[in-house]
Amino acid sequence: MDTKEISQAVISRLPRYLRYLGELRDERVERVSSQELSERMKVTASQIRQDLNNFGGFGQQGYGYNVESLYREISAILGLDKQHRLVIVGTGNLGQALANYMNFEKRGFLIRGLFDKNPAILGKEIRGILVRPMEELPDFVKENEIDIAVLAIPKTAAVEVADILASCGVRAILNFAHVDLNVPPQIQVENVHLSDSLMKLSYNLAQTERESV
Amino acid sequence: MDTKEISQAVISRLPRYLRYLGELRDERVERVSSQELSERMKVTASQIRQDLNNFGGFGQQGYGYNVESLYREISAILGLDKQHRLVIVGTGNLGQALANYMNFEKRGFLIRGLFDKNPAILGKEIRGILVRPMEELPDFVKENEIDIAVLAIPKTAAVEVADILASCGVRAILNFAHVDLNVPPQIQVENVHLSDSLMKLSYNLAQTERESV
Repeated sequence: MDTKEISQAVISRLPRYLRYLGELRDERVERVSSQELSERMKVTASQIRQDLNNFGGFGQQGYGYNVESLYREISAILGLDKQHRLVIVGTGNLGQALANYMNFEKRGFLIRGLFDKNPAILGKEIRGILVRPMEELPDFVKENEIDIAVLAIPKTAAVEVADILASCGVRAILNFAHVDLNVPPQIQVENVHLSDSLMKLSYNLAQTERESV
Repeated sequence: MDTKEISQAVISRLPRYLRYLGELRDERVERVSSQELSERMKVTASQIRQDLNNFGGFGQQGYGYNVESLYREISAILGLDKQHRLVIVGTGNLGQALANYMNFEKRGFLIRGLFDKNPAILGKEIRGILVRPMEELPDFVKENEIDIAVLAIPKTAAVEVADILASCGVRAILNFAHVDLNVPPQIQVENVHLSDSLMKLSYNLAQTERESV
């Protein structure tokens, strides 16, 4: 499968396609036209055809898309045909919210370990997973072949912990700390800055006010 | 101020500029060259000049950028020169994490109310803010001129609650529920789908494997 030519814009829309195709699959729908998908997803049928044409012969004139095939193909492109082993570092409210988020497991992201430095929470379990002290993090990552780490700790500690994770063989970091990490380029980093999302909303609100003047 | 011509790509980079400029300001740095900013932010100086040229005469040859002026200008473009009044709907782990997130207040996003349907948490306070029952949400939003609502509830309830919020005059919704809302187009919606971020990481991991074959 050659996906090198698929643009980042298309890639970023794939999880949404997957969500709608998953719903159709759950409803036992076998095939769907770009027109039907367009009405559900509220994007144009032409956009859907353009996006999905990147993946070859799933759409056929007069037939539409085979829901199951397209779902599997998009899953494979997103790397969801393989399982990933995760640790969550930081089990405050955010870390606990993520640990309890069942959607992750459904997509093959298996949470293997939870870590915190707060003695009050050590030894507790969240969904059956033990919260361990930070000192055990390096060995745990190596022994359990953890490939993704979720950083849900304050920014003061995040850069240092990311360095430790990088040196232990983690391949990707989902970073909720409001700071840029400084890891080697072969390690994939995805930042989720919650206040940036609020700023984008704020920009759009300000923009509508400017336009209505 | 005419910002209509600024691309969404530039807008989405503004919060990061603001973060670095805020750090420089905290360090009492008065001016910064695009070269210095480039080294800190690890983007090219040319990208920085292109981005910041959108905002007119802040950069001067041989002087660089005035940190304070540029910080204020970007704040104003992002609408952060005004305060916003928020409610958080859903005070599970995620809602509590957001309620405790001090960065929001620092940027002028004032959390005014917390709402939940779980009787066990009603009447409790998070950072001095009372958790109220859902029944009080419509009146509270109207009486307190709430302009932004944060939805931190499961997807099963999100669409209905969004409709209620829309009918009470909320102007923007930050949606953490893993479902598309169906609100009138004048209401700004920003979706934060946590599993989508993991999928993007997973795609990048799969892509590096493909490239290394």
